[in-house]
Amino acid sequence: MLEFDLIARIRQRAGLREDVVLGIGDDCALLSPPAGMQLAVTTDTLNCGVHFPEETAPFDIGWKALAVNLSDLAAMGARPAWCTLSLSLPEAEAGFVDGFLDGFLTMAQRHDVAIVGGDTTRGPLSISVAALGFIGPGQALRRDGARAGDDIWVSGTLGDAAAALAQWQANAPIDLALRARLDRPTPRLELGRALCGIASACIDVSDGLLADLAHVCDASGVGAELQLEALPASAALDAAFDLGTRRQLQATGGDDYELCFCAQAVHRAQVEAIARDIGTPVKRIGQVTEGCRVIVRSSQGETWLPPSAGYVHFGETAAKPSERRQ
Amino acid sequence: MLEFDLIARIRQRAGLREDVVLGIGDDCALLSPPAGMQLAVTTDTLNCGVHFPEETAPFDIGWKALAVNLSDLAAMGARPAWCTLSLSLPEAEAGFVDGFLDGFLTMAQRHDVAIVGGDTTRGPLSISVAALGFIGPGQALRRDGARAGDDIWVSGTLGDAAAALAQWQANAPIDLALRARLDRPTPRLELGRALCGIASACIDVSDGLLADLAHVCDASGVGAELQLEALPASAALDAAFDLGTRRQLQATGGDDYELCFCAQAVHRAQVEAIARDIGTPVKRIGQVTEGCRVIVRSSQGETWLPPSAGYVHFGETAAKPSERRQ
Repeated sequence: MLEFDLIARIRQRAGLREDVVLGIGDDCALLSPPAGMQLAVTTDTLNCGVHFPEETAPFDIGWKALAVNLSDLAAMGARPAWCTLSLSLPEAEAGFVDGFLDGFLTMAQRHDVAIVGGDTTRGPLSISVAALGFIGPGQALRRDGARAGDDIWVSGTLGDAAAALAQWQANAPIDLALRARLDRPTPRLELGRALCGIASACIDVSDGLLADLAHVCDASGVGAELQLEALPASAALDAAFDLGTRRQLQATGGDDYELCFCAQAVHRAQVEAIARDIGTPVKRIGQVTEGCRVIVRSSQGETWLPPSAGYVHFGETAAKPSERRQ
Repeated sequence: MLEFDLIARIRQRAGLREDVVLGIGDDCALLSPPAGMQLAVTTDTLNCGVHFPEETAPFDIGWKALAVNLSDLAAMGARPAWCTLSLSLPEAEAGFVDGFLDGFLTMAQRHDVAIVGGDTTRGPLSISVAALGFIGPGQALRRDGARAGDDIWVSGTLGDAAAALAQWQANAPIDLALRARLDRPTPRLELGRALCGIASACIDVSDGLLADLAHVCDASGVGAELQLEALPASAALDAAFDLGTRRQLQATGGDDYELCFCAQAVHRAQVEAIARDIGTPVKRIGQVTEGCRVIVRSSQGETWLPPSAGYVHFGETAAKPSERRQ
C-alpha cells in the first residue's frame, strides 16, 4: 500500500460535519468555528512500547489514540468537533491500517468528530493526534480554580488500567474487564460538559490520581486531603489484587481517563443528580485544603503514602510497558 | 531532566498572543479565533532518519519541524497563529532540547506563532506539529481551482534541498548554500497571503515539483505542461551538478517548500509586482492544459521524463535519508 492509497483510505472514512469547509486532501483543512465560542485544542502522542504494549490490537490502538485526546477535551468541559491524525508506521500493512481506523473511527463517530487532516510517514509505530473542540467564553473547567473547602470528586473507578498493565508485565492472566479499561478508555465528555458552571477545577486522570491532583493543587495554590477508603474500586480490581496493591494502583495508576474535579459543597446534590442523569458514577473522595500538598488519610486518621508515584516520562523510575517480567 | 521540567522549559519560551486565553499547562489550550474567519489546520510529523539525517543540528530540526507546517499554511494563503508541539525523545537531554527550541522558536517568533500545547514522550526522536491559522471565507488557495490556460509559477529555486541530501548520501562534501535549504526551509507565507484572490490554485513543493503539481492537476481535473529550461536553479545547484542530474533534482527533488501556483495570464504583471514587492522571486514555468497528465517539454519540443518520481513513503523506491552510500 502506497502513501496516497493510505491517505485515500483514511479520507473515505473521515466523517462529515457541516463546519468542515475543506477536509483531507489539500495543504490544510478549512474549518468554520461557531461564532462567539472559544477553541479548545489538545494533542497527545502514543508510542508503541511506551503508551501501549506492542501486542495491542490495532482496533484498540486506534480507539485509545483518539480517546486520550477527547479525554483532555472532556476535562475542560469542551464539545469535540475535529481532529488530525499523524500516523508513523514501519510499513503500511492494510490489515493494521483498517483495524486501526475501525477503532479510531468508532470513537470519532460516537462523539461526532471529523478527521480533517493529518499525515502518514514511515517510522516506528507512533500516533499523534490533535483534537479541537468548542467551549463558551468563561465556561472552561481549568486546573486553577480549586479553593480550600471544595469537595474533590472522581468519576468511575480507579486503578483498573494500571492493574491490567501490572498483570501483563507480570506475565499473569489478564482480567478482561481490567484489560478493556487499559485498551479502550472512555472519555468522560458528557460529564465534563455537564460540570461547566459547577466544578471549580477539573483534570483527567492519565498519570495517576495523586500526580494529576497535584497538578490541580499546584495550579490553584491549594492542597488536598483524600480519604483512602473512599477511592472507588471496580469489582474486577477488588477480586484480582490484595488491598495494599489495590490502593497503590488506585492512587498512582495511570491511564484510567476518569475525571477528577473539585466543586463547592453547596453543589453536592447537583453533582450527584448530573451523575445519575448521564449514567456516569461519581464519588466524593476528599477535600481541598489550605496547604500545598496532597495527603491521603486512612479512616484511622493515619497518613498513607504510596510506595511510588505515578508514571513519569524520562524519570529514573519510569517503567516501559513494553518491559515485561520474564 | 524530568518530563515536567521539559514542559516548563517549553512553557517559559512559548511566546504570547492576545488571542491565547489559556496556553500550555492545562488539559487543553483555550483560543479565541477572530470573528468571521475560517480556521486553517495542518499537521506534519518529522521522524529522525526519514525526514532528516540523524546528524542534523538540533536547531535545524526545530526550525524545520515548524517551517514545514507553516509552509502548508502558506500554500493556503493563511496567516499563522498557533501551534502545538509533540516531542518524542529517546532521552531528555537539556542540550538537545534547548537547541531544538532555539530553532523552533526562531521560526515561531518570525511569524508571530505561539506554542499553545503539546506533549513530551519517551520514544524514537520524532516531532509532530499541528499549526493553526486564519483565512477569510472563500479566500483560501486550494488545489482544485486550476483551469486550462492558467500560467504555472514557482517561487525561489528548485532542487536545492534534494541536492544537499544527494551530496550527503554520496558522502561528498556538502555545499553550504544547498545544505541551508535542506535544513532551514523558508515557508513562503507572505507570498501565499499576497496571492489570495489572484492565484487559482497553490501547493507547496514538499514531495517534488512533478509529484506536487500532479496533486493540483488531480484535484482540478486538468493537466500541465512545463518548460524544462524554465525551471529555476540556484547558482549553487548549477555549480555542483551536471545538467542531467540538476534537472532530475529540480523536477523531482522534495523538501524545497517553494510555492507552485497557477494564475490566469491576465494576472501576470500583478504576480510579478507582488514578487518584487515582497522580495520573493517567482518564475513562470508552464501552462495548465486540458489533459490530465503533467508533461515536461524541452525547448526543442521533446518530452522529458525524469528517471524517477518524487519521494513516496512506503513505496518500493523510497530511499531513507538515513541510508548513506558507503
